[in-house]
Amino acid sequence: MPLKVGIIGASGYTGAELIRLAAGHPEIEIGYVTANQYQGARVDELYPHLTGISDLVYDAYDLEVAGSKADVFFLALPHGKAMEVAPGLLDAGHKVIDLSGDFRLDDAGVYEAWYKREHTNPELIGRAVYGLPELYEEEIKSANFISNPGCYPTGVLLALAPLISEKLISTDGIVINSLSGASGAGRDPKPGTHFCKIDGSLTAYKVGGVHQHTPEIEQYMSDIAGKAITVSFTPHLMPVSRGILTTAYADMADFVDLDRLIALYKSFYKDKPFVLILPSGQYPQTKNVAGSNYCHIGIALDVRTGKVIIISAIDNLVKGASGQAIQNMNLMVGLPQDMGLRHAGLMP
Amino acid sequence: MPLKVGIIGASGYTGAELIRLAAGHPEIEIGYVTANQYQGARVDELYPHLTGISDLVYDAYDLEVAGSKADVFFLALPHGKAMEVAPGLLDAGHKVIDLSGDFRLDDAGVYEAWYKREHTNPELIGRAVYGLPELYEEEIKSANFISNPGCYPTGVLLALAPLISEKLISTDGIVINSLSGASGAGRDPKPGTHFCKIDGSLTAYKVGGVHQHTPEIEQYMSDIAGKAITVSFTPHLMPVSRGILTTAYADMADFVDLDRLIALYKSFYKDKPFVLILPSGQYPQTKNVAGSNYCHIGIALDVRTGKVIIISAIDNLVKGASGQAIQNMNLMVGLPQDMGLRHAGLMP
Amino acid sequence: MPLKVGIIGASGYTGAELIRLAAGHPEIEIGYVTANQYQGARVDELYPHLTGISDLVYDAYDLEVAGSKADVFFLALPHGKAMEVAPGLLDAGHKVIDLSGDFRLDDAGVYEAWYKREHTNPELIGRAVYGLPELYEEEIKSANFISNPGCYPTGVLLALAPLISEKLISTDGIVINSLSGASGAGRDPKPGTHFCKIDGSLTAYKVGGVHQHTPEIEQYMSDIAGKAITVSFTPHLMPVSRGILTTAYADMADFVDLDRLIALYKSFYKDKPFVLILPSGQYPQTKNVAGSNYCHIGIALDVRTGKVIIISAIDNLVKGASGQAIQNMNLMVGLPQDMGLRHAGLMP
Amino acid sequence: MPLKVGIIGASGYTGAELIRLAAGHPEIEIGYVTANQYQGARVDELYPHLTGISDLVYDAYDLEVAGSKADVFFLALPHGKAMEVAPGLLDAGHKVIDLSGDFRLDDAGVYEAWYKREHTNPELIGRAVYGLPELYEEEIKSANFISNPGCYPTGVLLALAPLISEKLISTDGIVINSLSGASGAGRDPKPGTHFCKIDGSLTAYKVGGVHQHTPEIEQYMSDIAGKAITVSFTPHLMPVSRGILTTAYADMADFVDLDRLIALYKSFYKDKPFVLILPSGQYPQTKNVAGSNYCHIGIALDVRTGKVIIISAIDNLVKGASGQAIQNMNLMVGLPQDMGLRHAGLMP
Repeated sequence: MPLKVGIIGASGYTGAELIRLAAGHPEIEIGYVTANQYQGARVDELYPHLTGISDLVYDAYDLEVAGSKADVFFLALPHGKAMEVAPGLLDAGHKVIDLSGDFRLDDAGVYEAWYKREHTNPELIGRAVYGLPELYEEEIKSANFISNPGCYPTGVLLALAPLISEKLISTDGIVINSLSGASGAGRDPKPGTHFCKIDGSLTAYKVGGVHQHTPEIEQYMSDIAGKAITVSFTPHLMPVSRGILTTAYADMADFVDLDRLIALYKSFYKDKPFVLILPSGQYPQTKNVAGSNYCHIGIALDVRTGKVIIISAIDNLVKGASGQAIQNMNLMVGLPQDMGLRHAGLMP
Repeated sequence: MPLKVGIIGASGYTGAELIRLAAGHPEIEIGYVTANQYQGARVDELYPHLTGISDLVYDAYDLEVAGSKADVFFLALPHGKAMEVAPGLLDAGHKVIDLSGDFRLDDAGVYEAWYKREHTNPELIGRAVYGLPELYEEEIKSANFISNPGCYPTGVLLALAPLISEKLISTDGIVINSLSGASGAGRDPKPGTHFCKIDGSLTAYKVGGVHQHTPEIEQYMSDIAGKAITVSFTPHLMPVSRGILTTAYADMADFVDLDRLIALYKSFYKDKPFVLILPSGQYPQTKNVAGSNYCHIGIALDVRTGKVIIISAIDNLVKGASGQAIQNMNLMVGLPQDMGLRHAGLMP
Repeated sequence: MPLKVGIIGASGYTGAELIRLAAGHPEIEIGYVTANQYQGARVDELYPHLTGISDLVYDAYDLEVAGSKADVFFLALPHGKAMEVAPGLLDAGHKVIDLSGDFRLDDAGVYEAWYKREHTNPELIGRAVYGLPELYEEEIKSANFISNPGCYPTGVLLALAPLISEKLISTDGIVINSLSGASGAGRDPKPGTHFCKIDGSLTAYKVGGVHQHTPEIEQYMSDIAGKAITVSFTPHLMPVSRGILTTAYADMADFVDLDRLIALYKSFYKDKPFVLILPSGQYPQTKNVAGSNYCHIGIALDVRTGKVIIISAIDNLVKGASGQAIQNMNLMVGLPQDMGLRHAGLMP
Repeated sequence: MPLKVGIIGASGYTGAELIRLAAGHPEIEIGYVTANQYQGARVDELYPHLTGISDLVYDAYDLEVAGSKADVFFLALPHGKAMEVAPGLLDAGHKVIDLSGDFRLDDAGVYEAWYKREHTNPELIGRAVYGLPELYEEEIKSANFISNPGCYPTGVLLALAPLISEKLISTDGIVINSLSGASGAGRDPKPGTHFCKIDGSLTAYKVGGVHQHTPEIEQYMSDIAGKAITVSFTPHLMPVSRGILTTAYADMADFVDLDRLIALYKSFYKDKPFVLILPSGQYPQTKNVAGSNYCHIGIALDVRTGKVIIISAIDNLVKGASGQAIQNMNLMVGLPQDMGLRHAGLMP
């Protein structure tokens, strides 16, 4: 009997992506999708690429109905909304995977400072497990409540975790330069997502360490390091629909040659099906992971400056959001973590 | 026990796409991939998006070895090469699906006139079944040798078959305007496929009815109509990697209202899992079928001019090539035609 | 002393393009730019590409002020607004070039049927000269009021005028398939102009002869032909910012060989500096005219079907709007029509 | 009487761009263009966007002929070729602007180490003035031989020169993350410039401080600083045709608030017509400088990490190559440096 899942807030890109991925998962049945604004509309009216894939119709969210339709819930809601919906579902005994930023930060005060909104359920924060399976697999397996990582933090943490964990780099002065596709800005039309603004253009935004993913990156890096880490993180908006490329720069603590570094990464991510370490001299292309749950990582040493440069590529909507959410669900319910997720990127 | 397949000429885009799709097919095991130029190289060296998906290594083609490794063969070879390889495999009793244009045309003379090369195996032409499952399903089921349709003809024939079959349009004066993504031009770098040439540009090529897919379109349209049809077909090169959008214009023979036309298309493609007819007022977007085997069709009437306009969208590498080839294979070996192919398009 | 011009409605793309082009025109000084919504804002706040090019500040429109600041006015207003503003400026003795559709159609009833709005100044319609300089140069030279052509009609009329004028084609059954970049949809963000919707996708819209440029195309074609012409016109939205590629199909009335056709086009457009006829076998690429006022035209014959295929490329914002408006202004004030407009397209 | 210029190696992108820009320059006449491989071909055969702009025909290079046709020469040759051609032209008394990397580095040994080729004219190195007009205007004015900067170094040096010059940053640990459009890879088709490889993808290349522009950046930064500077520089290849976006990270030596920093940049680049400093909170978009000679610079402080982040945008073919070359020519011959170069970027 398949697992019944619900997707709350399924009219945005991550919701649509959950539906797409769930349709290819052998053990999932979607029992409930909600989008208050589109109640009564078919999913494939909003997303014609799901025609023939899904016959679902959007409901308005109702806790009672939700409970009768599914057992595991994905919250694909905007920041601020998830914190209102999660408690009811958890209290009713359901498993919840929250894709918003509402429960990623340990400290409600930090949340409020970076997200510019009040946290109305700070007591729940401690109950959420951070859903980055490559680092927290055991905790996820026994969790009922997952806070799914942000798209940038996923690419950044996978890139740097081995170096931090093995104490191979100085934790001071880390520079993280990330490039994202436009789907990260969501489905609502805005001046900044107009085709003519993004097409043919390269730009940065929220420069100066002010993006709300910064404290998330720092918190989990610090957790790995066992000490506080501050990073300089700059996001950029690129003319692609999907993909995040992160180029991270850190000072080597001691010289380790490239072959050993690569071996160390491979060892660190042994048995982690979605992290692939590229051979020496090869670097990730986001297109190679478009639509897929893989993270490709390339490593280089700049011997003249003593820096190590780590480059990671993910699809922001898959490994950076909905694919990772399903990977977490797999672990929570005792399925192989890669079930339904072993798709290659769409190249060319 | 899974079906063992071989892919001959697997270094090009359609070969890589066969590997990608086969990896998600529950009953296929790829036993043999060849690319003479890349003998000994891993598939994921050429195609890093297949890292973690396929451990295959390219072989040089050898008939004896082929026979020991697989039972069904996909020929993803250039035009002119397939006609050299097909006979040996067929004589050895294997099933063969040829993705080239070598066996699509009934008349070797027509082939030679349009493809500008000699046909060295004209006696085989009659033995190939045209692999458009929506029109020739029964013949495909009992075939050993399939000639897989061209990318443009697939989109065109699916768009126009119902109208021709039901004699709803004049067979004179049909205009077919098709737009293709750059992957249709193949993997080899050429001046015409340089990023800077295609990016930001719209252009036509082989204008004036000289594209080699023209006689293929005409032959199968004529076959449906029971009389000779000549069309005016113009291909265009667009700044996308994947996708073909065809806009076909024909004169209505008698007035039929749009709702009835749509109903007729739905009826014509009943039980054809990959053809989806859009509601009135909606038209296909190629991105909605990117990476998928679906064909979306939209229909409009221009009552002022008496024309019907049919628009179809496919992914040239999937429904226009490798996905269709697997659909054909499914039918040939008695599997459900949609097995392993029910993926949604990658949107956004 | 430079000519003082005003741009009414200068916050949209065509307004910004007028400012860009005017900045490179040796005889123009912009004395007045308006955008009620952005009153007090600098032009380069909305359009940073004009930083260093223009120090202008948006005003709210006022007829009195306008008259004190400029002598020639470009109306870059939405349809429906231009008809409110034009009369006052004309009555005050100014020259007016209207880029909207408000005065392109001879018949207010036709306007109302296609634009779905009432025409509040039908008596002015007859006073506007259609500003397609390649066809109406003499009328433009003596005009005070120009109705600047639509973007699609510009590409279509330039492509077909010679054939119609010389009675070389049947005026029945003409098919016009046009592809446009996203800037044609304007600056306001809409679901349909979201980067993720257009990027990587090919689609058609307003299919079935319902685009409001259809009657404009037909009216001026009919004017050239001396008899009523009806066409089947289908616009498409393409993943480029700028450019319109038109592929027009018509039945040859009598056979004329390609070299003679090309010669005829060259002769027809002799002394027309912005229309370039490509050699046999070459077809336009929109990128070659990006940012420029040129129209490139390629011609092919399909001898099997008796059709002639004409392909034209323009930049929808330049030759299809603001460049053409300046070309008209040049003619109206006695300057060489190509003054300030001899820029090459931006390639690569 | 216009200045007669020659372009040696005019079949590549920078050569074509020189022709495009020269066509809009009021005091230049191109007397000579060479491309040995295309001798006898018209420029507009290779570059149809120059149809109607230039009637030039490619010659094979000949020193005698060159001297009779022009007085100032642009060398748009590949690295290694310029060093063969420059001496003859200089000896004959001509002014030479070399766009290659052959004379940018002071030390032939460094050149040979990074460019992997022998320098056959090391004695000429000292005679070339580095053509970055914002830093070396006076030297350029009196020079006969200019080494035009690389595309990346132009964007990097303009971004960082004020901070280094004013000793506001630590010269240790500077990280430079640059993103380039595909035209930087040149006109020849290669696997890496295939549309399908770049479209929809983000990637890095020559990672680890191995790009040949690294020593150029370091040499001129060191020159400004008066002490040796080593940087960590990583280039990336982006899916746009034109544009370089550089994001540079440096540690503030002392805290200076953002307003003062911006004022300092404006002061540093006072009277430099092509460098524009954006207001606080605004960051450059490459599209705003596409086709233009401007460099846009945005500045941010990351107070948490003590870093300053400088972002610059240029068009790699204009300010990063051919536009800058013409700016240098203007200075060399006593014209205003911005003559013929005051074009706005092409947006949208």
